[in-house]
Amino acid sequence: MGRNCRIDFQPIGRRTQAEWGARIFQVACKEGVGLASLCGGKGTCGKCKVRILSGEVSPLDDREKRSLSAEEIAQGYRLACLTRVVGDIQVDIPIESLLVSQRLQVSGEGRDAVVDPVIQAITVSLSPPSQTDNRSDQARLADYLAETCGLPHIQIDLGAQRQLSTILREDDWQARIALRGTEVVTAGRVGDRLLGLAVDLGTTSIAAYLTDLETGKVLAAKGMMNPQIAYGEDVVSRISYAIDHGGETLQRTVVDGLNRLVRELCSERELAPEGIAEVVLVGNTAMHHLFLGLPVRPLILAPYVPAVTGSLVTKARDIGLAVSPGAYLYTLPNIAGFVGADHVGVLLATGLYEMRTPAIAIDIGTNTEITLSVNGQLRSCSCASGPAFEGAHIKDGMRAVAGAIERVRIDGDSVAVETIDDQPPLGLCGSGVLDAIAELLRAGIIDEMGKFRPHPGVRHTERGKEFLLVPRDQSGTGKEITLTEKDISEIQLAKGAIASGISILLKNAQIPWHEIDRVIIAGAFGTYINVASAIRIGMLPPLPVHRFSQVGNAAGVGAKLALISKTQRQMAEEIARQVNHLELTGYPAYPRVFANALRLSPAANWRDDG
Amino acid sequence: MGRNCRIDFQPIGRRTQAEWGARIFQVACKEGVGLASLCGGKGTCGKCKVRILSGEVSPLDDREKRSLSAEEIAQGYRLACLTRVVGDIQVDIPIESLLVSQRLQVSGEGRDAVVDPVIQAITVSLSPPSQTDNRSDQARLADYLAETCGLPHIQIDLGAQRQLSTILREDDWQARIALRGTEVVTAGRVGDRLLGLAVDLGTTSIAAYLTDLETGKVLAAKGMMNPQIAYGEDVVSRISYAIDHGGETLQRTVVDGLNRLVRELCSERELAPEGIAEVVLVGNTAMHHLFLGLPVRPLILAPYVPAVTGSLVTKARDIGLAVSPGAYLYTLPNIAGFVGADHVGVLLATGLYEMRTPAIAIDIGTNTEITLSVNGQLRSCSCASGPAFEGAHIKDGMRAVAGAIERVRIDGDSVAVETIDDQPPLGLCGSGVLDAIAELLRAGIIDEMGKFRPHPGVRHTERGKEFLLVPRDQSGTGKEITLTEKDISEIQLAKGAIASGISILLKNAQIPWHEIDRVIIAGAFGTYINVASAIRIGMLPPLPVHRFSQVGNAAGVGAKLALISKTQRQMAEEIARQVNHLELTGYPAYPRVFANALRLSPAANWRDDG
Repeated sequence: MGRNCRIDFQPIGRRTQAEWGARIFQVACKEGVGLASLCGGKGTCGKCKVRILSGEVSPLDDREKRSLSAEEIAQGYRLACLTRVVGDIQVDIPIESLLVSQRLQVSGEGRDAVVDPVIQAITVSLSPPSQTDNRSDQARLADYLAETCGLPHIQIDLGAQRQLSTILREDDWQARIALRGTEVVTAGRVGDRLLGLAVDLGTTSIAAYLTDLETGKVLAAKGMMNPQIAYGEDVVSRISYAIDHGGETLQRTVVDGLNRLVRELCSERELAPEGIAEVVLVGNTAMHHLFLGLPVRPLILAPYVPAVTGSLVTKARDIGLAVSPGAYLYTLPNIAGFVGADHVGVLLATGLYEMRTPAIAIDIGTNTEITLSVNGQLRSCSCASGPAFEGAHIKDGMRAVAGAIERVRIDGDSVAVETIDDQPPLGLCGSGVLDAIAELLRAGIIDEMGKFRPHPGVRHTERGKEFLLVPRDQSGTGKEITLTEKDISEIQLAKGAIASGISILLKNAQIPWHEIDRVIIAGAFGTYINVASAIRIGMLPPLPVHRFSQVGNAAGVGAKLALISKTQRQMAEEIARQVNHLELTGYPAYPRVFANALRLSPAANWRDDG
Repeated sequence: MGRNCRIDFQPIGRRTQAEWGARIFQVACKEGVGLASLCGGKGTCGKCKVRILSGEVSPLDDREKRSLSAEEIAQGYRLACLTRVVGDIQVDIPIESLLVSQRLQVSGEGRDAVVDPVIQAITVSLSPPSQTDNRSDQARLADYLAETCGLPHIQIDLGAQRQLSTILREDDWQARIALRGTEVVTAGRVGDRLLGLAVDLGTTSIAAYLTDLETGKVLAAKGMMNPQIAYGEDVVSRISYAIDHGGETLQRTVVDGLNRLVRELCSERELAPEGIAEVVLVGNTAMHHLFLGLPVRPLILAPYVPAVTGSLVTKARDIGLAVSPGAYLYTLPNIAGFVGADHVGVLLATGLYEMRTPAIAIDIGTNTEITLSVNGQLRSCSCASGPAFEGAHIKDGMRAVAGAIERVRIDGDSVAVETIDDQPPLGLCGSGVLDAIAELLRAGIIDEMGKFRPHPGVRHTERGKEFLLVPRDQSGTGKEITLTEKDISEIQLAKGAIASGISILLKNAQIPWHEIDRVIIAGAFGTYINVASAIRIGMLPPLPVHRFSQVGNAAGVGAKLALISKTQRQMAEEIARQVNHLELTGYPAYPRVFANALRLSPAANWRDDG
């Protein structure tokens, strides 16, 4: 292990340590600093531009010369995915590189939302009380807003009222209030920023974006594991826990975690969590329900009825969020029991509903949500794709962390693997398994049914047949890494679920697969998969690669859009209302389609006859 | 001490023990069962009618024969103030005797509010979910209310939503919801009563009324000491505590106390506190602010600016009230720092604002609030009448509890006293001190300046002059009970503050005192004073006694009216807006008026030249 270097990310004010030689992109990812990327850090998309403000980095790569203009190079711009840290550095992240949202612009659908949040800041300057004017603080403010701002009939939230009286007396009867409709939701000091928080609450991880509601700019972004993971790795095990023990522990755990994340986010910018005047949250339906303390048992019993689908507005304090005492929490609508507000966020962020040509948005995970847009009509479904893509149920599977094999290349007898952070291989993450199967298929080592053909790399063990990917002496664990027929079968089930979901949406809309003009792949796993491999095994339709976009955490971007724009919020509600959700299990053709989709072949899955 | 008898009050379901021979009225008072009374338990007003359902009581008194009809006597009706318990009994309290509200009707201004609460109960019967209809619970209810009840765009409170999902599944998709505007605030079971709670939060005591919001009837009423009393007996000492230690302890203490009271109220009727869907609270401005966690320091610093005067609506859960999770708390508006929502409640309950002839409402306490109504115009003021009426700062003073002298009669050398519950005398409560001074004045033992004249009962001690009321051998404490010149001077200050408050309101309205057609005296102390005595010492204008009404806890009645009627609620807000509040200390004539009002003489205080 080499020496550590200090990295200071600007303007978000995030400081961290990284190993000598680490790529800036990977350091940023690990620290939860969301850098734009379409290629997943391969130096080809040119989206992860950063500017080196001071300190030493690796020399300019030829691929960087192609992506950057001479002027940019002169100014110190580099691609974060190709630039390695070789000393203490200070890095400026331009706003267009900072957030996933900006990737979407690049991917064709500009989502430059006009900043028009549901709350507005107003600076008030009241006349001080006197013997002849001892109106209450509340009446004094209400009169001021009526007379000076033409806002009669305002109400003041009790939490805001508690703040107001103190601030007025300390600050010479001046304050900066946040108005939401006719309600004063927070009272702060003149000059305070009006802050908002967008949250994507995932089963595995939570991403939060601290946002300036007057500029719409993200001030700091940060991720953490969902601490509920201690009570079950997936949605169903969490729901089981809630059924057995009540949902309170899960609710408190995730709220405590989010409060910690908010404190960290705010301290990065030396801001107070009490300045956050509005919170928007997305999550899958189960995470949404557990967060709000809603009953989840019906979510896992047919016919899978959620407690709430519509958007929900409640005081953030009702949930225990430690933000401004008067702040509201807004949750985007859910579509169905297994298509949640996070997917609505994806649809909003990607602009799928506005596309004029047929397009599909897929958010791949343990549960995969798919929406097809045809002539403004939206159809959605969910597929139980299982945990194989997260490395679970795979013999040498693991989560996508350092040392996980994410790429595999087979040429004749030679097997090459790439790992996350270039660490010695420890196992296979989802994209690695998918890549390995695609390569085995390409090399003719397995057939369409996922069965091994005779080949020098294939061995017989008591577990059945398996293929050696990494021999003992090259493995980071000291044990060999192999792929078994059972592993392949797990991926067949997962990819079959997704492919049949897409197929049934297409059938329902009566359009053939090759008319899909756009496939948007959202979510952490989807960002890192090799699309060509996914096509090869028949998981995605064999469209030209340029029709695919891998957009990262689009759900979080959707939350941010709904945070900074009430128009976008209304749009999200409109989207949720318009989506026609199909229950695949209730669809007569489903068993046949699914059985067919198990085959590892584009041709078998994607036929023009449907 | 004699043996105890069991008394069972019906229909409120209150059981207690009382000493053999105790009057039913006193037993009811001690137990917080509010019985109607204008005469304070003297057998003259005939308002405290009760019906003996079983058991033995004292024989019929001649005064009862005058007050009760033959039919009533045949049915077992008695006057509670004249009837003594001589065995275990069961007593029915007719609704017209149960509550102070009914006294008001009797006192001339019918306040039979139409029952139109801000919430309404709706019974819903939803179609159960199925494979082809898996709308969320929220969407299912919203659709039902839109289609069946013509109520589009409803929102469901998060707390109600949590209840709803469980109830629907347990009760065959039926529920009874409470709708407030467009918000579903609670979800209960079909057949549940729609409950409301009215609270009068006093500095010394808390009164709460559990009310059926569909009939407007009080189901149970109960009082308790304000547990904040541990942190100071009066408003100023509580505020001082809050300034020194923060207001949280006081807030939590009173909320915990109220929650206990609510549990007791509900258990009397075997109802659940979670059924309470709306809470209305009145209190003086300081109690109101401490209850809501609002800053109180400005209340005791000139110019005495409250944080809030307007009515306030917030979720009851925001304050920690353990009622329905979705219930709202509504607080009536305050008028000024020392004229609070409780006084608005008095004005609402007494109908003062509607009176066509000049009328005054007075709520006497440590702080006394006075409002004058002339031609629909309301003028209010507050007077620092001090704690003398509560027995404080009086040598042998005490609170109005059993054994306190409440009436004094002096004939020549003979002094007769009456005590609460006819117990051996322990000291003087406020009405006793007031009575004693009036009698001393009548007997010529003191002069208008409150100085003793030569008289056999007057003695010189190291404390100065004093008058012997109860000799050692007749006293319950074994010590003699006397009234000192200093005691008289305390009462002079108190009554002077009240008389000068009334005088200045009259001057401001430019009407002479004798045009006052009605004087309404509210509050616990005011209910028990001898009006003739108060007139004699110049505290109240010397009007014919029939122009006075002693209405008891009118503030609580006001809260109840605002609970059961949104029209009354709007009226309360209108009253608070219209009141013209006068700050006495800022009034130029005040020092002269106050100095004059110290004299113990109607003629000195109430002169036609103003």
